[in-house]
Amino acid sequence: MATLAERHNVRIRGEGNSVVVFAHGFGCDQLVWKDVAPAFEGDHRVLLFDLAGLGRADPELYDRQRHSTLDGYALDLIALLDSMGLSQVHLVAHSVSTMIAALAAIRRPDLFASIVMIGPSACYLNDDGYRGGFEREMLDQLIDLLEANFVDWARVFAPIVIGNPDRPKFTDDFVETLCRADPQFATPFARVTFFSDCREDMPKVGVPVTILQCQEDPVAPEPAIAFVHETIPGSRLVRLEATGHCPHITHPEETAETVRRALTDVAPAAGT
Amino acid sequence: MATLAERHNVRIRGEGNSVVVFAHGFGCDQLVWKDVAPAFEGDHRVLLFDLAGLGRADPELYDRQRHSTLDGYALDLIALLDSMGLSQVHLVAHSVSTMIAALAAIRRPDLFASIVMIGPSACYLNDDGYRGGFEREMLDQLIDLLEANFVDWARVFAPIVIGNPDRPKFTDDFVETLCRADPQFATPFARVTFFSDCREDMPKVGVPVTILQCQEDPVAPEPAIAFVHETIPGSRLVRLEATGHCPHITHPEETAETVRRALTDVAPAAGT
Repeated sequence: MATLAERHNVRIRGEGNSVVVFAHGFGCDQLVWKDVAPAFEGDHRVLLFDLAGLGRADPELYDRQRHSTLDGYALDLIALLDSMGLSQVHLVAHSVSTMIAALAAIRRPDLFASIVMIGPSACYLNDDGYRGGFEREMLDQLIDLLEANFVDWARVFAPIVIGNPDRPKFTDDFVETLCRADPQFATPFARVTFFSDCREDMPKVGVPVTILQCQEDPVAPEPAIAFVHETIPGSRLVRLEATGHCPHITHPEETAETVRRALTDVAPAAGT
Repeated sequence: MATLAERHNVRIRGEGNSVVVFAHGFGCDQLVWKDVAPAFEGDHRVLLFDLAGLGRADPELYDRQRHSTLDGYALDLIALLDSMGLSQVHLVAHSVSTMIAALAAIRRPDLFASIVMIGPSACYLNDDGYRGGFEREMLDQLIDLLEANFVDWARVFAPIVIGNPDRPKFTDDFVETLCRADPQFATPFARVTFFSDCREDMPKVGVPVTILQCQEDPVAPEPAIAFVHETIPGSRLVRLEATGHCPHITHPEETAETVRRALTDVAPAAGT
């Protein structure tokens, strides 16, 4: 019987007293951290894993009912850390995993020493007085396309998410990353990701949170980031030079450096 | 010396007492009307033309200064109609041409018997209390991509604009349409199109306007269409069954039928 760690394809590297867990975003897997995670291996234990239904996670982990809400993914994260006897980890989360992290931390604050949120958004849909960045029509079109043709969808989504069109290799690589995802799991996860609304959960997050904001992030634009910052008590905001939604891919050095500072700083970071 | 009509690649077909002018949208040319315009040739004179810098319009027509605002394109339209001695035309306009039409009608209401606006938006950018549908970050990314690689941009933009992923031929054809555009003119026109703000002009439009709204139009979502409808005095709103931003391409029969009704109805149309 495989352990939960094995079923989530957990990889642990490095040495140190504290544990840094990296949680990837929609349609990706732990490989997206390949240029950031090594920077932490000298003085931390670094834990990489794949979300249910993605990467090399055991396909049997995925449960249509459990994973019909982000809370299902949060329960997975809690179960994984518990199964390994870990607590007080530093969690570095990207995109939808920032909300999975928030939901997990609300249920089990003891598990987390801190959370670094890269490009968080509590709700992608615009609403009266709230600017998530997307009208329903746009998300409907993107999800229609995803359901009809996952590869075409990946080719549309990747350049929007990655940005940095002067360096197309990042986009090409990200298309490949997305195309490794199994549409049978990624398709319902797209709906969960894009239509979730965690706005009311933000004030309940009680662990230290640092938010990393990119320039020109079309997925988590200024007003969406500002909402997360304003509603998570005591959260710190650091603005990166990096552009796009995936600084850990396009600007790994700046991302690693900023995450390191977030983990060590007790006083507010520069740029807050 | 070529006439202005020749320089705008004007094609006139059909017979009748009234003139119907079709004005294409960003990155396109008059060919996008090929499945709609013929339905009017039996009882109207149908005029097709290409905007400056697009299709087979004389490249010399394009002037960086004049065409740095939508008003420059509106002045072109006025000059074209005047040069042909036309007035009281019915103008059927798509997307950005709906605003060009509005600006022309404000200057010269005598030229227009009516305007049919397909997928109009007075401002694409969200703003305090206004939902155009796009945050600046998204438009920045899309325009960065367009400037770096027009063909890649076309491949991203086409499926978003066309929708209907179950019928990919429309998207493939639209990519070809976009790729016929000359980036040296289309690139600055993209900025003019996406960053124009005509909201204050809407109340000044004094000619009869019918707005055609598609389902799931990511370019002109519900709140953007509602704004145009509410601010153009006496405008009528007709909701199509068609989905996406280009019903004249994907649903030409419904579009032609609805435009015909808009041209003949004096009483408010069904669905208003």
